[in-house]
Amino acid sequence: MSRQRIANFCPLCGTPTEPLLRFNVLRPVCPACGHVVFFTPNVAVLALILHEDRVLLVQRANEPKQGLWVTPAGFMEWDEDPAQAARREVLEETGLIVTIDRLLDVFHTPDDGGLADIVIAYAATITGGELQAADDAQSVAWFTRDNLPELAFLPTRRILARWAAGEL
Amino acid sequence: MSRQRIANFCPLCGTPTEPLLRFNVLRPVCPACGHVVFFTPNVAVLALILHEDRVLLVQRANEPKQGLWVTPAGFMEWDEDPAQAARREVLEETGLIVTIDRLLDVFHTPDDGGLADIVIAYAATITGGELQAADDAQSVAWFTRDNLPELAFLPTRRILARWAAGEL
Repeated sequence: MSRQRIANFCPLCGTPTEPLLRFNVLRPVCPACGHVVFFTPNVAVLALILHEDRVLLVQRANEPKQGLWVTPAGFMEWDEDPAQAARREVLEETGLIVTIDRLLDVFHTPDDGGLADIVIAYAATITGGELQAADDAQSVAWFTRDNLPELAFLPTRRILARWAAGEL
Repeated sequence: MSRQRIANFCPLCGTPTEPLLRFNVLRPVCPACGHVVFFTPNVAVLALILHEDRVLLVQRANEPKQGLWVTPAGFMEWDEDPAQAARREVLEETGLIVTIDRLLDVFHTPDDGGLADIVIAYAATITGGELQAADDAQSVAWFTRDNLPELAFLPTRRILARWAAGEL
């Protein structure tokens, strides 16, 4: 599970909160202004990019799972279109411009060692750009099904297992 | 777009925050403890329940869009499996127990008048329970394709348009 959420103080007025039952859950409530803190999930997006029977993976530059490989991925901003977030992450990490072809799945893998609560997976196709690792990626490379590197997170492993099984 | 996010005060230590550039976005940062506030999306889930060429809809008991109809739906908790959240919402609003059959889509409809930033849509099948409106629903009923009531939100409208077109 990703980090526990904490709101000891009201984000609006700074008053210490109290845990009170609101919509069936104990939530931090401000006794001064009445604000209820609803914690919301960390949503990551990933892009599966296939070309000529190879998959594009990036090597993680940062913890957790530094040095292991994943599809291009990252967190969406709260007000971002998740498909656009996937395009942005691909550009930031690989230098490539992609279009999103279709939704593949939504994963909930809380015990995965990552910080995401849910992961939205898309299939994408390259339309431009120049391949160069950057941002969260220390390197980027193409891999065949039978020569995959060590993978970091469950969503990547599950998507690549489906690809290897010919299910995508 | 759903409500703007605000963190005037650090939720951990109560110190007034400052907007600083962190990961390419101005985010509230605590000058005392260093905490960075990452705003995350409000994620709703919906369940499309079909039976004998009819769809199960609930009439909203609360604003926004009070009195209009939607599929059973609601917000997932930050640490909840979204498919389980959809099952929970169906149970709360309709009294029915369902299994989730498959993921249908992920919607980003920020100008929809709702409070969700993204909506994850599932297809579900009834396995038990007794039909009775409750919680956010003031009534619940089955509708045929050619006799739909006034619908509240875009994700419901889009999913039902696909159903009406025979695409589901």
